[in-house]
Amino acid sequence: MELLEKDFLYEGKAKRVFKGEHENSVIIYYKDSATAFNNVKKGTIVNKGIVNCKITSILYSYLKENGIKNHLIETLNERIHHCDKLEIIPLEVIVRNKIAGSASKLLGLEEGYSINSPIIEICYKSDSLNDPLINDFHGIALGIVTRNELDYIYEETLKINNLLKEFFTKCNLELIDFKIEFGKNNSGEIILGDEISPDTCRLWDLSTGDKMDKDRFRRDLGNVEETYLEVLRRVELVGEKC
Amino acid sequence: MELLEKDFLYEGKAKRVFKGEHENSVIIYYKDSATAFNNVKKGTIVNKGIVNCKITSILYSYLKENGIKNHLIETLNERIHHCDKLEIIPLEVIVRNKIAGSASKLLGLEEGYSINSPIIEICYKSDSLNDPLINDFHGIALGIVTRNELDYIYEETLKINNLLKEFFTKCNLELIDFKIEFGKNNSGEIILGDEISPDTCRLWDLSTGDKMDKDRFRRDLGNVEETYLEVLRRVELVGEKC
Repeated sequence: MELLEKDFLYEGKAKRVFKGEHENSVIIYYKDSATAFNNVKKGTIVNKGIVNCKITSILYSYLKENGIKNHLIETLNERIHHCDKLEIIPLEVIVRNKIAGSASKLLGLEEGYSINSPIIEICYKSDSLNDPLINDFHGIALGIVTRNELDYIYEETLKINNLLKEFFTKCNLELIDFKIEFGKNNSGEIILGDEISPDTCRLWDLSTGDKMDKDRFRRDLGNVEETYLEVLRRVELVGEKC
Repeated sequence: MELLEKDFLYEGKAKRVFKGEHENSVIIYYKDSATAFNNVKKGTIVNKGIVNCKITSILYSYLKENGIKNHLIETLNERIHHCDKLEIIPLEVIVRNKIAGSASKLLGLEEGYSINSPIIEICYKSDSLNDPLINDFHGIALGIVTRNELDYIYEETLKINNLLKEFFTKCNLELIDFKIEFGKNNSGEIILGDEISPDTCRLWDLSTGDKMDKDRFRRDLGNVEETYLEVLRRVELVGEKC
């Protein structure tokens, strides 16, 4: 699989995107670059691209088998996905099963604080504004989404949360929170895009409580590469049985 | 009307609260103190207490006549309200008809930006956290409100917005945004509490666009006292005809 500069479309923090094999598809290349705190901290996690590409492949197949439409058409090699071309909805959709990270600061609650039901947050994707947390009224008033679209996104997100929680529990990992993105395909249908990986989830080891995700990079906890590989190992094992 | 120290209950940024005439009521004294940016800026607006007490009296009578239950029982003197004792729900409920203030910064939109439908925001009342903007999921997960309570608050808030817009238009003022608070009375009923005044509303003169509210204090625009008095004058004129 050779990626040609002439087909290059754009570059994100963790991926490069190229023209796809047909008009309504794109090729997504997973990089090793790691960023945190809206690009303030930058670095490399060796082979992260390979790990995240593989984990996303497994999880997106699992989600698809369980009725969640997503953009993944096929995995072309260890770093490359062939995907539906989506018009990304500029919202980061975050699900929290326990309080951690920014929610901990926002609400003044310790990390790991238990909540009765999941919290969904939407953040307006804007680097210059620092991806601010907004609410439904903002999203609708700004013309980012309609009420119906948001209802669909929330419904789909809760289904995804349930499926992922079940999957990660089998990996002996607790899904604390995660971030997903949705986009519209060629038919105007809203489907899951982007990736699901230790970059976009908080995963705590169910036995030890160890952080098994990008917080190891964000917070300089060490063993970053080893942890990503360990998550891949567990996801592959569970994926094989799905 | 003499307020006795023995009846003192607590002091807020703009009010002092005393025991009421009966078990389920309180006496609210309106101070001249003005604060902004979560207490970082402090000052005095001479006679603000009198102006805000009077404006709130007129608006709360008007709202009550139009079916909006609120805590005001009667106005005892120029600075004092006799009110239902409420267990305040720790949410600032903000309605925006145009973008201004914090929403302008949050969303990167110029002040006065028009939106198709009102935006309601809820902020978690916490000085130490800086009254953060939260969403419905946060409010419910934290046990601050139930889904049904929030639905009722939103419904009531939109009614209040329509009534206030109509009232202020007659004052030749555009209601850009405002903040209200709700609480539960002795029967557990959710009713409007606090105040509605130039301290809690953004009001722009419909002819000149002049800011006729606390932004004159926040942003050192001058003529603070004169502006508060002018708003009172207009509200009294319209109030008499209601």
